[in-house]
Amino acid sequence: MLKVSYLGPEGSFSHLLAMERWKEGCEFLPYKTINEIFEALMKKESDLALVPIENSFGGLLYDTVDELVSRNFLRSRLRIKEEISKRIKLCILGRKGEKPQRIYSHPYPLIYMRNWLKKNLPEVEIIEVSSTAEAARLSSETPGALAIASKEASKIYNLDVLYEDRSKKPKNITSFFVIGEGKNPRSGEDKTAVVFSLKHAPGTLYRALGAFAKRKINLTRIISRPHPERRKFGEYIFFVEFEGHEDDPSVKNALKNLSLSTLYYKTLGSYQRIEL
Amino acid sequence: MLKVSYLGPEGSFSHLLAMERWKEGCEFLPYKTINEIFEALMKKESDLALVPIENSFGGLLYDTVDELVSRNFLRSRLRIKEEISKRIKLCILGRKGEKPQRIYSHPYPLIYMRNWLKKNLPEVEIIEVSSTAEAARLSSETPGALAIASKEASKIYNLDVLYEDRSKKPKNITSFFVIGEGKNPRSGEDKTAVVFSLKHAPGTLYRALGAFAKRKINLTRIISRPHPERRKFGEYIFFVEFEGHEDDPSVKNALKNLSLSTLYYKTLGSYQRIEL
Repeated sequence: MLKVSYLGPEGSFSHLLAMERWKEGCEFLPYKTINEIFEALMKKESDLALVPIENSFGGLLYDTVDELVSRNFLRSRLRIKEEISKRIKLCILGRKGEKPQRIYSHPYPLIYMRNWLKKNLPEVEIIEVSSTAEAARLSSETPGALAIASKEASKIYNLDVLYEDRSKKPKNITSFFVIGEGKNPRSGEDKTAVVFSLKHAPGTLYRALGAFAKRKINLTRIISRPHPERRKFGEYIFFVEFEGHEDDPSVKNALKNLSLSTLYYKTLGSYQRIEL
Repeated sequence: MLKVSYLGPEGSFSHLLAMERWKEGCEFLPYKTINEIFEALMKKESDLALVPIENSFGGLLYDTVDELVSRNFLRSRLRIKEEISKRIKLCILGRKGEKPQRIYSHPYPLIYMRNWLKKNLPEVEIIEVSSTAEAARLSSETPGALAIASKEASKIYNLDVLYEDRSKKPKNITSFFVIGEGKNPRSGEDKTAVVFSLKHAPGTLYRALGAFAKRKINLTRIISRPHPERRKFGEYIFFVEFEGHEDDPSVKNALKNLSLSTLYYKTLGSYQRIEL
């Protein structure tokens, strides 16, 4: 049976998405942190992992980015298999009739709900926690505590839905990567991700990006991180995602050219973007 | 009297650094979030703000970056005045004789202390909170709760220092920006920060960086963020920091050249790096 790991506990948006994507016949394994999800994959405790990568309000999830650029990941046979995007519908959970004193939330939903909270719950203390499901779990244990979480989490943690976001705009979308072993075939609508590091000198990033610019390859994500294995300011590792498949002749050429100007370089996979 | 805002509550590393940098004759104003610090500056509730920008273990502080690239900041007269770097010495705080059950911490100290915690407190539940001082405050209210915080926070929150990190290596350094009004004169050892956005098309970042590469200007930070005012994937805003002062002829030339290839561009200031 296919084992899929996700950011738990049960009732998180990752959990809901995993159930929607893989339906029945899978075993879903919750982990407490992104780091533990990746460790489980390395140890083959699971076959696939579903990890959040970007939210349209909070931005990138750097815990995931840092695992993708870590030495252990780059040495592994793991690759990005899919990107799945999904609209997130947030709810305020709690118990009817209780006076709200605090609200638990992951930091990203707070950004989306900021104005609503200021208007409707101005006096309530905000406590940031590691996931929306953890927020619901903590809320279920504490009198007067609310949570920002999914509607489904209300059932699991025995809470009332006090408010449900139904606004069509602005859209709150989260994008996830599916991670697993092996290379995907070309689909015709692929993106490719690479990681590289550069000598810290004038013009190195400029030359590296030239590999893509000269072939009119469109970048879809560029993320710079302080180098995780060298604790010095000014040394960066780059995660770059662009349109095309690693087997496309122009992409092959660009990557060959890129490898000449980088200290280190690895392709993380070519994959499709799916909207659920 | 000079009013300096910082990320509170009292006893945070920001607070300690503010007291070291400005000594007496200042009023220090604690705020709960980076966003509130910036709002206070805009409303002139404070003259200067001290905000963390990067930790050598946790990486960049994106709450700060997002304020620096926000429309409100870019429209203001505020600029980066100084960068201050300081070695952070972490302690485990709690009450002697109590059995530890949970530990509160900002996420970044957890990365630095990860191995120590696995070895010495493997069974303790980890709860992430918004600052080290908030961790100490919560610990002081809860039996069996520890905190990762500064030695000074133990006095403020009446806790015992159960462990003090004395390791010389690896060095845990946090870098802060001082934000205020007005342009700094040239010191000869300056860095300059700019923010820009680009058309989403092949080669735009390559051409923008060419402005620096062609003049052998060394980049010291490059940060990309999903565009905060356009909630679409693939649109980025860039924060770039490099060596030199905005009044240096080569920098002036580079910025003039940069402005030709960007949709939007603004200099955030030229400033020195100070180590305390």
